[in-house]
Order: sequence, then C-alpha cells, then structure tokens
Amino acid sequence: MNIFRLFVKPKTATTARDRLQVLLAHERASVGGNDLVTILRDEILAVISKHVKVDDNKVYVKLERGLQVSTLEVDVQIPFDRTTRRAA
Amino acid sequence: MNIFRLFVKPKTATTARDRLQVLLAHERASVGGNDLVTILRDEILAVISKHVKVDDNKVYVKLERGLQVSTLEVDVQIPFDRTTRRAA
Repeated sequence: MNIFRLFVKPKTATTARDRLQVLLAHERASVGGNDLVTILRDEILAVISKHVKVDDNKVYVKLERGLQVSTLEVDVQIPFDRTTRRAA
Repeated sequence: MNIFRLFVKPKTATTARDRLQVLLAHERASVGGNDLVTILRDEILAVISKHVKVDDNKVYVKLERGLQVSTLEVDVQIPFDRTTRRAA
C-alpha cells in the first residue's frame, strides 16, 4: 500500500477542494484479538462529519484486515466553502 | 516526513504491545482557512481513549501545520491485555 500516493493525487477537480485524509493502522502483538480499526471507524467518521459537511459520494473509505495489521483509509474531498460547519 | 517509518519501527518493547497509529492530513485548497487537524485532534484522541486504556507516556502525538497542509500523527502503544476496555 503506497501511502505517499494519498498525498500526491493530481489536482483534477475544477472546483477548489480541501482534502482530509485519515490513515489508521492497528498492529496487533498477537493474531486475533480485537480489531480496533473496525471499532474506531464509525466514531472517527462521525467526528469528521460533525465538523465538515461531507457529500457521501466524496468520501472514500477502505478497510483492510490482515492477521496482525488492520488499516483504515479515509479520504474526504471537501467543497471549498464547507470546511467547518461553524464557519459556514 | 517519511510516513513509512511509522509502520516499521523495530519491535524493541519486551512486553508484547499492540500498536495503534493514526495519521491525519488536511490539504487546503487555499492558504489560511480552518485547520481541521487541530479541530479534530482532541475528539479523535477522545474516541481512541474511550476504547483503549492508554498510558499517557505511551502516546506520541505530533502536529505539523504548514501553509496548505497540516498533519497529525498519533502513535499509541497498548499493553497487551488492554486492547479494548469492554474486553478487559
């Protein structure tokens, strides 16, 4: 998984967009055990949408579960005027 | 900032530890504007500590604020038996 590509996507969108990316990785000392990434996913998405008005089709979420490492990638494109609800 | 190093730290800890890493990056279309990373930081840390009993000295938080990109790195080492509060 090339993490750097997260930060270098070419600016294709015509309208200026802010971009918020979240990467979560849980490395377990032993196989099995609780999968924090799955547990935290919904609550972290809830925190984000509390502060940013997000279009569902502009949110990319990818969860990968391995034996010892699970990762969550969230990539949100935010229309320019809606960075934070309070500011809008 | 070499993001890959986040995932390849050598296993030095004697006691088995799970590891949770969070990387947040806010790329702003224009200079200035709200800094989502600072706004989201405390709430994301609160979500994590709700599910994981964390020792303060095992939490590494780094916030970097640039003109157009701000990043937040959180690296939490979790003692083996305390992956989630409910399971403990």
